[in-house]
Amino acid sequence: MADITLQFPDGKQRQFDANATTKDVAQSIAISLAKKAVAGKLDGKLIDLNAPLKHDGKIEIVTSDSEDGLSVLRQSVALLTKVALKETFPEIQFGAEVGDQDGFYVDTDKQDGQVSVDSLPAISDKVQALVNQKLAIKHVRLSKDEALKKLEGTSYEQKLVKDSDDEEFPFYEIDGVSVLASGVSFDNTGAIKFFRLLSVAGAYFEGKSSNPMLQRIYGTAFYKQADLDADLQARQEAREHDHRVIGNDLDLFFVDPKVGAGLPYWMPNGATIRRTIERYIIDKEVADGYKHVYTPVLANLDLYKTSGHWDHYREDMFPPMDMGDGEMLELRPMNCPSHIQIYNHHIRSYRELPLRIAELGMMHRYEKSGALSGLQRVREMTLNDGHTFVALDQVQDEFKKILRLIMDVYKDFNIDDYSFRLSYRDPENTEKYFDDDEMWNRSQTMLKGAMDDLGLDYYEAEGEAAFYGPKLDIQTKTALGNDETMSTIQLDFMLPDRFDLTYVGADGENHRPVMIHRGIVGTMERFIAYLTEIYKGAFPTWLAPKQVTIIPVSDDKHGDYAEKLRKQYATAGVRAEVDHRGEKMNYLIRDAQTHKIPYTLVVGDKEMADNAVSVRKYGEENSESMGADDFQTAILKDIANYSNN
Amino acid sequence: MADITLQFPDGKQRQFDANATTKDVAQSIAISLAKKAVAGKLDGKLIDLNAPLKHDGKIEIVTSDSEDGLSVLRQSVALLTKVALKETFPEIQFGAEVGDQDGFYVDTDKQDGQVSVDSLPAISDKVQALVNQKLAIKHVRLSKDEALKKLEGTSYEQKLVKDSDDEEFPFYEIDGVSVLASGVSFDNTGAIKFFRLLSVAGAYFEGKSSNPMLQRIYGTAFYKQADLDADLQARQEAREHDHRVIGNDLDLFFVDPKVGAGLPYWMPNGATIRRTIERYIIDKEVADGYKHVYTPVLANLDLYKTSGHWDHYREDMFPPMDMGDGEMLELRPMNCPSHIQIYNHHIRSYRELPLRIAELGMMHRYEKSGALSGLQRVREMTLNDGHTFVALDQVQDEFKKILRLIMDVYKDFNIDDYSFRLSYRDPENTEKYFDDDEMWNRSQTMLKGAMDDLGLDYYEAEGEAAFYGPKLDIQTKTALGNDETMSTIQLDFMLPDRFDLTYVGADGENHRPVMIHRGIVGTMERFIAYLTEIYKGAFPTWLAPKQVTIIPVSDDKHGDYAEKLRKQYATAGVRAEVDHRGEKMNYLIRDAQTHKIPYTLVVGDKEMADNAVSVRKYGEENSESMGADDFQTAILKDIANYSNN
Repeated sequence: MADITLQFPDGKQRQFDANATTKDVAQSIAISLAKKAVAGKLDGKLIDLNAPLKHDGKIEIVTSDSEDGLSVLRQSVALLTKVALKETFPEIQFGAEVGDQDGFYVDTDKQDGQVSVDSLPAISDKVQALVNQKLAIKHVRLSKDEALKKLEGTSYEQKLVKDSDDEEFPFYEIDGVSVLASGVSFDNTGAIKFFRLLSVAGAYFEGKSSNPMLQRIYGTAFYKQADLDADLQARQEAREHDHRVIGNDLDLFFVDPKVGAGLPYWMPNGATIRRTIERYIIDKEVADGYKHVYTPVLANLDLYKTSGHWDHYREDMFPPMDMGDGEMLELRPMNCPSHIQIYNHHIRSYRELPLRIAELGMMHRYEKSGALSGLQRVREMTLNDGHTFVALDQVQDEFKKILRLIMDVYKDFNIDDYSFRLSYRDPENTEKYFDDDEMWNRSQTMLKGAMDDLGLDYYEAEGEAAFYGPKLDIQTKTALGNDETMSTIQLDFMLPDRFDLTYVGADGENHRPVMIHRGIVGTMERFIAYLTEIYKGAFPTWLAPKQVTIIPVSDDKHGDYAEKLRKQYATAGVRAEVDHRGEKMNYLIRDAQTHKIPYTLVVGDKEMADNAVSVRKYGEENSESMGADDFQTAILKDIANYSNN
Repeated sequence: MADITLQFPDGKQRQFDANATTKDVAQSIAISLAKKAVAGKLDGKLIDLNAPLKHDGKIEIVTSDSEDGLSVLRQSVALLTKVALKETFPEIQFGAEVGDQDGFYVDTDKQDGQVSVDSLPAISDKVQALVNQKLAIKHVRLSKDEALKKLEGTSYEQKLVKDSDDEEFPFYEIDGVSVLASGVSFDNTGAIKFFRLLSVAGAYFEGKSSNPMLQRIYGTAFYKQADLDADLQARQEAREHDHRVIGNDLDLFFVDPKVGAGLPYWMPNGATIRRTIERYIIDKEVADGYKHVYTPVLANLDLYKTSGHWDHYREDMFPPMDMGDGEMLELRPMNCPSHIQIYNHHIRSYRELPLRIAELGMMHRYEKSGALSGLQRVREMTLNDGHTFVALDQVQDEFKKILRLIMDVYKDFNIDDYSFRLSYRDPENTEKYFDDDEMWNRSQTMLKGAMDDLGLDYYEAEGEAAFYGPKLDIQTKTALGNDETMSTIQLDFMLPDRFDLTYVGADGENHRPVMIHRGIVGTMERFIAYLTEIYKGAFPTWLAPKQVTIIPVSDDKHGDYAEKLRKQYATAGVRAEVDHRGEKMNYLIRDAQTHKIPYTLVVGDKEMADNAVSVRKYGEENSESMGADDFQTAILKDIANYSNN
């Protein structure tokens, strides 16, 4: 057979027999390299360690200490998982499987029900047994026709092969079981080191909600025990903060992709938190001079043509609804045009400015179902939205006022780790922006001046402004330390122009106002996801769905007293419940802690005699005895102060 | 010419010359009849008094004291209005015009702007002048081709003729001006008696929002002055109660058909009322054991296929949105399926029943744009919705509990004129209903028993129940005395069946719950329309958008004191404003009364010296002097008691 020429990463070229494998190539360089080698990469494509290279190209030796090396390991474990599943559930069908830098997964349809998380230990044991046996992993590549023939009777894998543009399809045989693979594997099960099957979750075949839902088995694998341990710990930590996990544990919300991907249902507990925040922010804004309104989520598509959303933002919008007679209605992607309607409903005078319109405005954004996640990425959301209409010379004062309100709100939520980012237009490319130099220059100067007046540190980002005006972003940190934009103050010169907004000035003439878009806590969905994560579900008293649980030592003897207290506290506006289940007290106390209820009150003979309660705060080990009325005073103060402990 | 045979309403037949007119026929019967005759009706179709009858048929003489007689009068005034408009604005184009039992209208497009209400007196004078001249009204009927030729240069009327199936089109010429008509007219302007041009409002050509908006001039006419006076007074009364008029006067809400028919925008004043009611009803329900939730307005269409809405209610639903990949999303027409999702999210135990799920649930109903009206008939609405899931033997107690809550709420809104209507299945046709005799019999007995236990009067309506269960309707009276269903308690055996709802009973077995749909105040839109009408816009203090206006006698001298009071009251939770306009005091006081603000406080030297206020209640002539703190105590009590005066 003819020779082939291989080029190494350092540029050097060498000739090899066309049947040579990556293993041969590695061995020709160094035995130690051959030992660490787990696969090859020919012209950027992963190739099995013992597959003939066949043609000229650029070669890399993939070793276990690289990212590709991790992918090969995980792809190998995924294959063994498929084999173990097939041996356990002979009727099982597979969807896609992936092994990569993040871990691996295998999609399954067990036919007579679903693979549950309870079966993972047994599957894991089976994989480990295959590893222990150090079995050969045999590798063949079939043409599309051959692959389809081999996959006869499988529906998902046949479809994957049919829809693929590949010419060859790899199958691996282990322990007499042959499975289709999407990647490259070891040649012996013994090469697999440390792995873990992690969890099971539903996933639509091909990610399309119109397809059947398969069960996706997640796992991970490493070459070193220490790496696996570190990864499991990081996963555990993320899990402890994960608002989806906490949301499920505390019964805050759920999403049912069958009924609506990205459309959360707020259970009573989550709804209580949301309602508390909604009332809080409305009251705060009304006290600060905002006029709250309700505007419809639907409008004629023409409104979004005028605003420019339909031209520039259509990808993120829902499809219009044809109402007949040429009437097209659209779910709004933003609330600004609605608030412009409010502004434009009357002739406005300079005496009315700044005019502050606010709303908890529901909006809809089209997101691919794959991008959706819990409350974090949704298709229907309610924004704490506000638009201030000001004369140009009022920009600075209004900007300060908004900023003070934001910082005031942050304080109430104990958000203190945040930074400011001021975005200007690019002074070298002013023609790329809304054309009004005076507006840009004066307003940028005013924003900067305001920050300086308030003595705040900020980062200036030239060229980061939107087309239509400069802005301030306020960045907070998520529970896992990532940056997130919580609030924005965005100036807008364009929409007032597009909608021909005016006010009558002191001079009797019409003038154009500046519009300031501002969000304080963002959408209810994302904000509550954020809070859930930073609080790890232990919401401060004023937000907690249940603020007090009262546990009678004996429900027979002390249940009535507990009920009397509950009524007293409820009348005072405290969300209190009595735990009448009559289980062992330690169990009930532990249960209250698990549900992260801020105050657990235990009441027995002594408390009843003294009109007292034994108070245990969430997260503390000790109880404190207190008069029943004193406790009420204390918790009401706690709530009124938005106290965080 | 051949004779024709006419048959009179009493069945008698007579022969007439084919050229005979209705006038001839009337005269042949009695001169007095001919005097009262204003038109004929041949085979049920109105015909001009002096038009040849031409063929056999059933004839009626239309006299001025009939409904048809009123239509002819109003059609005649509509024609004169067109002539007067044409003489005033030569470029004017007309859309449709109608004269009927309700009055008349003429649709117009003045080309260089719109006909405004200010031009009505001049037009009216012109019509009166035409009447006074007792001019002949000449009548011709043209073929479609002739009519189109005559209407050359007009766009709307040409389209109306083009789209019509008629073979002949009547034109009337008055004072040398020829106009197309849709009905039958007098033959002389002198026959017109008492008329009034009433108002002007926008109306889409052919009622389609995709067409241009024309200006519709409304008017009415009568044969007797007393009838006109009575009609104008009734219109005035309806206007005084009309929530659309009050909504505009008090700046509560508006609808902009160009941006969305049936999609109200709640201005700050209306939004304040709505928010107050929303918080009130949520707090009331939560205190009564309801769990409030938020559920999405969108769901996969399949949900409404399962619920049966898509099969039986599709006409009232919005068109589904195709999200790609076969995913169809639908704006919900009702909230019940969403609450079933909440129920079904957990396995439910008998210990959890009755489970009460409530929400301010936004829904969308497709209504023809012509049927929409203010807040009364809308396309987007928010329902004070609730669903209770109960075991069959809990139906009676839960029904009583809901009823007590409803009556309690009515009391807070001062609604005391209501009646009960209990609807059963038809005992003769039980096969027409959901098939479960035990459920029907037991639950109907329980509802009736509950009404009797509570000592309430009620009307029993056999055969009026819905397919899926018996119900109680609570009927109130609108401001104009019409019956309106305010609240409903509707039992539902079907949806629990369709969604396979279960709970685990004390016996450990699965049982089917009964679902109770209940509305207390209905939708926010309709309820606030209702309240606006019964209160004539003078909302009780707890609901009033502005509760207190403070008028300084001199803004310079007493403005600061007024501001001090405003802050004090605002901090206490009172919606107070200071009127700093500095206009004459009587004007400001009158203005506060016009805006129906419950309390007007005047503060001058004496009040400032005494830390006092001079209080004037809405609708009262006299003021009362009071300590500033005493006033605060009084108004807070007023608010807390939902006091109506």
